Formats: sequence, C-alpha cells, structure tokens
Amino acid sequence: MSEYHPLTESEAIELARRIEGVFPQGAELTCREIGDGNLNLVFHIRDEQSGRSLIVKQALPYAKVVGESWPLTLDRSRIESEALIQEGRLAPGLVPKVYKYDPDLALTVMEDLSDHIIMRSGLMQCRRYPLFADHISTFLANTLFFTSDLGMNQQEKKVQAGRFINPELCKITEDLIFDDPYTVSSNNNYDAAIEDEAEALRTDEKLHFEVALLREKFLTQGQALLHGDLHTGSIFVREDSTKVIDPEFAYYGPMGFDIGAVIGNLLLNYAGQLHWSADEASRTSYREYLLETVKSIWTQFDRKFRAHWNEKNVDRLAARAAGYQDDYMRRLLQDSIGYAGCKMVRRIVGLAHVADIDRIPDAAVREKAQRIALRIGKALIKGNRGAESIDFAIDAAREAAAALKG
Amino acid sequence: MSEYHPLTESEAIELARRIEGVFPQGAELTCREIGDGNLNLVFHIRDEQSGRSLIVKQALPYAKVVGESWPLTLDRSRIESEALIQEGRLAPGLVPKVYKYDPDLALTVMEDLSDHIIMRSGLMQCRRYPLFADHISTFLANTLFFTSDLGMNQQEKKVQAGRFINPELCKITEDLIFDDPYTVSSNNNYDAAIEDEAEALRTDEKLHFEVALLREKFLTQGQALLHGDLHTGSIFVREDSTKVIDPEFAYYGPMGFDIGAVIGNLLLNYAGQLHWSADEASRTSYREYLLETVKSIWTQFDRKFRAHWNEKNVDRLAARAAGYQDDYMRRLLQDSIGYAGCKMVRRIVGLAHVADIDRIPDAAVREKAQRIALRIGKALIKGNRGAESIDFAIDAAREAAAALKG
Repeated sequence: MSEYHPLTESEAIELARRIEGVFPQGAELTCREIGDGNLNLVFHIRDEQSGRSLIVKQALPYAKVVGESWPLTLDRSRIESEALIQEGRLAPGLVPKVYKYDPDLALTVMEDLSDHIIMRSGLMQCRRYPLFADHISTFLANTLFFTSDLGMNQQEKKVQAGRFINPELCKITEDLIFDDPYTVSSNNNYDAAIEDEAEALRTDEKLHFEVALLREKFLTQGQALLHGDLHTGSIFVREDSTKVIDPEFAYYGPMGFDIGAVIGNLLLNYAGQLHWSADEASRTSYREYLLETVKSIWTQFDRKFRAHWNEKNVDRLAARAAGYQDDYMRRLLQDSIGYAGCKMVRRIVGLAHVADIDRIPDAAVREKAQRIALRIGKALIKGNRGAESIDFAIDAAREAAAALKG
Repeated sequence: MSEYHPLTESEAIELARRIEGVFPQGAELTCREIGDGNLNLVFHIRDEQSGRSLIVKQALPYAKVVGESWPLTLDRSRIESEALIQEGRLAPGLVPKVYKYDPDLALTVMEDLSDHIIMRSGLMQCRRYPLFADHISTFLANTLFFTSDLGMNQQEKKVQAGRFINPELCKITEDLIFDDPYTVSSNNNYDAAIEDEAEALRTDEKLHFEVALLREKFLTQGQALLHGDLHTGSIFVREDSTKVIDPEFAYYGPMGFDIGAVIGNLLLNYAGQLHWSADEASRTSYREYLLETVKSIWTQFDRKFRAHWNEKNVDRLAARAAGYQDDYMRRLLQDSIGYAGCKMVRRIVGLAHVADIDRIPDAAVREKAQRIALRIGKALIKGNRGAESIDFAIDAAREAAAALKG
C-alpha cells in the first residue's frame, strides 16, 4: 500500500486500525467518506462501541471547482501535515491532532472533530462563539510571531520557508483573489444583476493600484508561515472550542493575509445577515456581535503579538529600535484590512462564493447583500493604507449597510 | 578526485586541462594561486604559448576575516555558480563565462579576467570608466527584472527562490550591515578618533528605526535574485568592459540592496577622494565624475527597468494598474538610497572596511573622510523614504563634503 492510489474505505479502515492508542484491540470500525470530492478524500472512521473516531484525509491529484478540473500537486498533503504539526506546537489545542502522515499516499490521519461544526454554518445560524476571538487571536499571534524573523532563529526561518514553497496553491490565490475579479475572466462567476458592480471593479484605477500593492506583498513578502486560506469554512467551532483546519495553502507570506481572511469572512456574514435571520431585533444584535468580534480579534491579536515581541523577540535591532513595534503593528493592521477587502470582493464576483450570501433565497435580498459586501470590500482595499485603527473596518461595514440597506 | 579536499596546484592544472575548447592539446600549463585565502582558493591557470588562461575557484569550508575564522557552507559554491550562469544568460558579457561547476569539490571553472582590474583599485587611481554606468545599469535592470514576479513565471520564481535560500551568507549581511554598527559589538572595528561617531550611531533612535525597516525588507522581501554583495570589489573593469564577479551571497531579496551597494561604494570612494588624489583641480573633477556616475546609473537603470516592464511584463495586474509602475520605481529608488547608506556606515565602523578610505595615509585626512562617509550614509538612511529623485543622494554627498571638508 506504499504507492499512491486513492484509498478504498476498507484500506482506510486498515490504516486507521494501525494508529496506536486510538481504537481498542479488535474494534469494529465503520468508515464513511465525507469529503466533497473536489480536492480530497476524507474518511471518517469510527468505533461505535468505544465512541472513538479519527479522520483520514487523502489528497487527490486534481482540483474540481464549479465543474472545472485541473491537476494539483500531492505535495500539498505534506505541506498541510507539516503546517498542522507546527501550528499545533505553537497554538496547542487550536488545530486537530496529527496521528500520522504518509507521504507516499499523500494522506494525514488526524483527530476527528465531528463534535464541532464549520464556523460558517454556525454564523449562518446566528450562533455566538464567546471564546472565538480569544482563540483565533491566540492562533494568529502565536503562529505568525513564532514563525517570523521576530520570533524564531532567522537562519532556520529561511530553511523552513524553503520547505513551504507552495507554487501551485499560491497560484490559485494569485489568480482568483488578486487578478480575475478585476478583469474579464472565465474564472469569474456572478449574478447578471450585479454586472454594473463587476464592470466598476474592472475600471476602478484607484482600486487596481491598491490591489497591485497587496498582490505584490502576497508574491514577495515572506513574513511568516501563513495558514493561507483562513476563512470561516476552515475553522471548526463549538461554544468552548476552536479548531483551525486545512492549511494546505500554507506558505511564507504577509501576516495580514491570514488576519484579513478571518475579518473579511466575518464581514461577508455581516453583509448576508442584513437580510437573513429571523427578526429585525435579533438581526441587529447579531450584526453588532459580528462587528464586536472583528474588533475583539484585532485588539486581542495586537495585545498578544506585542506581548510576544516584548518577551520573546529574537531580533536585536527590532528589540531596540524605538517606534518600530508601533509602526510594524500599524502596517500589519493596514495589510489585514486590505486583504480582508480582497477576500470579500472575490467571494462576490470571483470563482468561489460563500454560502453566507449565496444561500440567501430571495434574489433581490441576495443582490443587496452582494452590493453591501462589495461596498465594504472596496472601502477596505482603497482605505487600507490610511487606516489607523480597526474601527476603520467597523465603520466601513456600518456605512455600507446604512447606505444600501434601503 | 570526487570528494571534497582543497586542490593542489597540480590537481587544478589537471582539472583545467580537461575543460574542452580552452587549451591546445598538450599545452604546458602554469598555475598560480591568487586568492586571498580568506574564503576561497583561486587558481590562475595559463598556457604561455597560446596566451589562453582560465580560473579555478574553489570554496574553502571556512571564512577568515580580520583574523577570525568561522565555518562556512560549501553550498555557496553551488549558489555562486548557478547565479553566475543565470546572470550570464540575462546580462550577456557582463559576468565571467562558466566552463564547469563541480559540486563535490565545490569549485567553478570560469573565464579569466586578468586583463581587467578590480574597480575599487581603478577608482582609487582616479580612472574613469565611460561605459560603466551603461553596463552596470543593464546588469541590474536585466538580472533584477527578469528574476522577479514582473519578468518571469511566478511559479518558477518561487521554485528558484527555494534554490537560492542562503542562510549562512545572509547572516553575515544581517549581522555586519544591519546590526553590529548600531550597537556595541566585538565585530565592530574603527579608529579611536571616531569614537564619538560610533557612539552617535548607537544612540540615534531615528537611525535605528530606519535601519530596522531596511533590515526587515532584507529579511522578508523576496523581490528578485540579488547578487547580494555588489560592491566595487566585486566588479572587474576595463575601459570598454565590465564584469560582475563573486555572487556567492546571491538570494531572493529586495532589489534596492544591489543598486544601493553600487551607489554606496561609489560614494565611499567620493568620501575618500576628497583628500586622496594628486591635485585639487583633478580631485574636484573626479568627484564630479563619481556623482555623475551615480546619477547616470540610476537614470539608466530606471529607463531600462521601465522598458522591460512595458515590453515584457508577465504580471497582468501590474501591467494594467495605473500609477503602479511609478510607485514601484519610487520605492525602488528609496530602497536603493537607504541600502547605499547602510553600506557606507558599515564600511567605516563595522568589521570589513574599504581600501578607498583605509589606505588614506594621513590619519587626520582619513578621519575626515570617515566622518564624511558617515554623514552621507546617515543622511541616506534617514532620508530614504522621503527621497523623490536620485538627486537626493547627490545632494547629500555634496552637503557632507561641504560641511566637513574644512
């Protein structure tokens, strides 16, 4: 079973059985393939009697998105597994435990999180996660600081960056986030009702300029080991638990890209929530919850990252250059806001959408949500380099909602 | 002869004889080791009769600088050889031809340039090189543009960046250029007469802030394949020819670091020339020649780089984002000015100095040259982010000379 082939369910069971310390001897294991079949096989393997379970995730040698299919490296399985192990070391309890990685089969055996739900679904149900801002800000502060030149040996960092060179998956981001939405592309995908918005994205010179700057940083700025795809569909939650999954886009890039992914996806839900939940009072309250969460994530991240800097900095010059930390955090905030905007725009006009908005059943309401999301996204992109506080993003969200709610 | 050991002269001759197309059959080859013995063995191998010759350059497994010795990877020989081959492809005629690279012996067999002289020596003799600005601006524009995301396939660039991860040699730069000169360090080395200057470098908060920003870019910004050590001792010249040598510090970094190295070293010579050459009239004229050369290098680089961008850009968004090229070139100018300043400061108070200033025989004159160089260097570092034209550097040089010439 050493050469690559997609596993059968019985092979997955045999492989799971050999993981030590999970299943009792002779357990009767059941297997269910629960992946969406676009990128990976995901086997859920369970022993009914003990209630124990685990996940076998195997990379497929192609990607399927909206009917298209293209070949994709199996090496992403190694990158995912190595990133999970690093993240688990730096942010204990905030990612699934990795039991085994098999490079030949391009698979990872990991902790089963089926007692959690995907955060995007939780947000769509207006659920609240009181610990989420604390958890995700710890995940971000720890993984970003301690894989950067500020928090790890600077020569080892270079070698590590070499192990996370990830050209194929970076190309997906470069095309789908930083290029297609701003031009005519067969990768784009949007409702005819917002053709005017799509056209405006293609002709807005100020927007193109800012996206070019953000794209340049994504291409060149190896600040830290990023998750690389940290939207609310890559986060499993319970009220008391947060688990970040699927770091197959991991590479050395600008820290703000991960922070912005979280913020942008909360704001996409915000744009959808304007017309989505049960009654106006609970809607208003949930929108406030989302904005408070955005603010709290940044505020806690800022505090935790600075604490690491003050206590664990390894860069002698950074440690003693007056004003440098403040400048660094300001640039990080601005990058995060800019990338949050890019993430929002691509989810409305680009290839891959989000359920928060796509599943709004009423077409007119959905269109309004799309316009609100685009208005926020464009404001964040255009204003990122002038932003001095996370309130800039909060205000942009309120402004767009007020202007278009109608 | 396949396992690593330092070559003897007779082994070097045998190796040279096996290179095809250089020496006639049965030639009587002579060999002279001409390296400085600090980092490499350099064998000059020649056939008196035909006049043909070549160089065998072998890396030693240690570095010796000012009496200290530390182990150093032999992999720098691979990096040097691969960088030379790339540079030769992108800037034909501006680097020595590579005949052979032997990874086991960590050696490169290359074109002999002994009809050229080291540019630093030429400058110290007040010689002029009318084609130098044209040549070096072509070298910079071609090697930097076509190894960047603007000029090469962006996925291949990432793979290539992985082949040029160069932790040990980057560490030398990070320590000696971006750290030691601004603190108390046993690596520093300066005349007691300028203790006040050294002290000022250690306590100047504005300077530390700017150096921290430049250091951060050196650590994180993988814009293009740099030469990495492009001072005037890494350039061979004749009146009609320019050859860039010794790219063992090559890695993916900020373009301005290479441009700044050339400019900073010309300005170091300028600081030394104030008191160095024969008579006041020729001194004045040579100083003007140096400043004109600095200006011409940037102006020609700017024109050639923009021409590549307009004709050969592979980044679709960069190609259509209005104002992006101007902004990019402005940032490149500012980086170049900042790095030029860092290069100047470290050559006065840091570990490794330059002959342009160290060899000034009169101590008082030498001290004045050191103070001028530091004044220019600090002005370039502190002012880099406000600079809008190369005249900023020219003016800073003139100002320092006028203020301290006395």
